[in-house]
Amino acid sequence: MIERQIEEEIDRVEREYSFDLPEREISREEVAMAIEHTNLKTFAVPEDIEKLVSEALEHEFYGVCVNPSYVPMVKEMVKDKKLKVITVVGFPLGATSTEVKVSEAIWAVKNGADEIDMVLHVGMLKAQNWKYVYEDIRAVVEASKVPVKVIIETAYLTKEEKIAACVISRIAGAEFVKTSTGFAPSGASPEDVHLMKFVVGENMGVKAAGGIRTFEDASKMLRAGACRIGTSSGVKIIGEVGG
Amino acid sequence: MIERQIEEEIDRVEREYSFDLPEREISREEVAMAIEHTNLKTFAVPEDIEKLVSEALEHEFYGVCVNPSYVPMVKEMVKDKKLKVITVVGFPLGATSTEVKVSEAIWAVKNGADEIDMVLHVGMLKAQNWKYVYEDIRAVVEASKVPVKVIIETAYLTKEEKIAACVISRIAGAEFVKTSTGFAPSGASPEDVHLMKFVVGENMGVKAAGGIRTFEDASKMLRAGACRIGTSSGVKIIGEVGG
Repeated sequence: MIERQIEEEIDRVEREYSFDLPEREISREEVAMAIEHTNLKTFAVPEDIEKLVSEALEHEFYGVCVNPSYVPMVKEMVKDKKLKVITVVGFPLGATSTEVKVSEAIWAVKNGADEIDMVLHVGMLKAQNWKYVYEDIRAVVEASKVPVKVIIETAYLTKEEKIAACVISRIAGAEFVKTSTGFAPSGASPEDVHLMKFVVGENMGVKAAGGIRTFEDASKMLRAGACRIGTSSGVKIIGEVGG
Repeated sequence: MIERQIEEEIDRVEREYSFDLPEREISREEVAMAIEHTNLKTFAVPEDIEKLVSEALEHEFYGVCVNPSYVPMVKEMVKDKKLKVITVVGFPLGATSTEVKVSEAIWAVKNGADEIDMVLHVGMLKAQNWKYVYEDIRAVVEASKVPVKVIIETAYLTKEEKIAACVISRIAGAEFVKTSTGFAPSGASPEDVHLMKFVVGENMGVKAAGGIRTFEDASKMLRAGACRIGTSSGVKIIGEVGG
């Protein structure tokens, strides 16, 4: 049944899809409101995370995205603020077990995460083990009880695999698909964002992440259909245009 | 108390330590018996892992090192064989919570892992939060009940931080320290291996990993004091010398 939905979607893309980057004015505010200000570096110290949160509050970004161990600290800093706390699960390889991803998601939500960015099992996707990929995502969605974004890691996927990943994420109940971890050889492209948006449709969001460093980069992603931007360059991006 | 032991060790290194790569003949067999044949790639498919295990059995390597989701499959393949099943915890960023690392270690051992390679919290090490780093490792060691290697990710550490990481790993009851995840900008060097061996002493092992691609590379690591080699190039390495 998953297999059939994937095949139908690949056919639909073949018949109906073409890339198009609509001309549209993107405001500084629209970008700021989409930014998940991100520091997922292995060597990030608590001071780096404090700075990240302060910057996000100052520039009124959508949220901050940090590794799980920093979630309790960030939650403490943002209580009573509308800034969202986003963390990652099975990150960045997606190759731990489903049970461990579920434990990590539950732990993160219990400690203050408002949203979960999980990495799907890239190897099982490439092996066309759709059932594994579906159950892995589904288990995290059910355990989290907060919006889940599925990182599909486009750098390693064919067009058909990108479509399959989006279809499975949708069936599994994720709220978003996300292009990249930022740890692969390439990150977000407007082409991938646009294709992903076509496949997931109006009821799901697309988060563009990886290599987004300028206002122009961010604008293109929004024009292509993203509604969230994961970047560590939020302050620079916003600084490029007058407020 | 941890702080004092670290300071004493830094002093001892300052006074007594110098790098030296002893001349010693390294045999093909010694290298093979030290190799943990490794595939931790996000896009590894089950077939890749089967191949890894077959190669490791054929060449009589020490073990195979795979991501947690592949542990049950590998265990099934190697039952009744002496090949060890090694997996990773908190990999490769080391930045998930201690509780999640513990869950992952318990899951892995329950599903067949003979050894655990965990990543310490690099950020907390750099912030000199020794207590956090110690408790994080200690919790995994206690939960695992199998040998634990602590990946210190030398690429991001100063000499003092490398010494501190080794001292803490020793106090926390780890059996090994390991240089690298293979996902940082640099991997193992004979200099780091030799320093790490000096600090941990005779009762602990050193695993060299990251960027080891030739028999010469592997030999140097063993001469510098490593007793395990993590590499994805095991077959090529062994093929360089006559059997």
